[in-house]
Amino acid sequence: MSDADHLQRAIALARDSMRENRGGPFGAVVVRDGVVIAEGANSVLATSDPTAHAEVVAIRDACARLGTFRLDGATIYASSEPCPMCLAAIYWSRLERVVYAAACDVAASAGFDDTFFYDELRLEPASRRVPMRQDDLPDARALFEEWKRKPDKTPY
Amino acid sequence: MSDADHLQRAIALARDSMRENRGGPFGAVVVRDGVVIAEGANSVLATSDPTAHAEVVAIRDACARLGTFRLDGATIYASSEPCPMCLAAIYWSRLERVVYAAACDVAASAGFDDTFFYDELRLEPASRRVPMRQDDLPDARALFEEWKRKPDKTPY
Repeated sequence: MSDADHLQRAIALARDSMRENRGGPFGAVVVRDGVVIAEGANSVLATSDPTAHAEVVAIRDACARLGTFRLDGATIYASSEPCPMCLAAIYWSRLERVVYAAACDVAASAGFDDTFFYDELRLEPASRRVPMRQDDLPDARALFEEWKRKPDKTPY
Repeated sequence: MSDADHLQRAIALARDSMRENRGGPFGAVVVRDGVVIAEGANSVLATSDPTAHAEVVAIRDACARLGTFRLDGATIYASSEPCPMCLAAIYWSRLERVVYAAACDVAASAGFDDTFFYDELRLEPASRRVPMRQDDLPDARALFEEWKRKPDKTPY
């Protein structure tokens, strides 16, 4: 199957989810070595979970199926350009490649906030629309000293 | 309870999770009107889920408990500055305020990739370390036309 075939599957998942009122029109497929590992559709409305975007759903399912928190060597196909949450999830999961169809601004024209959130993340914390305050407690810094010294840690 | 009290609870959650090898040293608490709605700790390792960051875990749990995908009026307390995935999740969940203790660069010094990911998200898709390719299929654009026309949609 080609990249376009996998994208068409992501689009079909998006369409079904929207028509069933499970969430917005977003779908994703995770593929490795030509094998579909997992699929996901936006299910924010059905599950009352604001993090249940198609890519996050597909990544979580792929990791659950493989029993790992890493998806090295895999590609994610998304019906739209990933929002910042999904893109960072893609980085954390160590996916190798992203293929997407509609660009962010198309989603934005339909009322989704992806481009606004990209703009916000570029700002310094104090300049963002959502107020962010730091209280630099020594106990929080100490956590990382303990992590650095921890002999049996698993980096991720 | 004060902001510092809630942060200390987030730090305690982080410490426990790290010592039990459930994940990195990260904890979070969601509070509204002085009431703790949900708590979370990083559980990437225990659950093989790369999205199981403290803030995401706490947001998902808060939403599940309240039966909503919106946390308007609530504050999230995090032992560290949220990574881009968590910050975007905070925006999607419409949390009102963020209070955090350790800054990103402290986490980075312990080997966590938060600052690198912030830098990557600032770049155009084609310039990012993870290759991103767009295939602008008309069927993907059509999804958003259908969403705009959909009479019974729930915006989120």
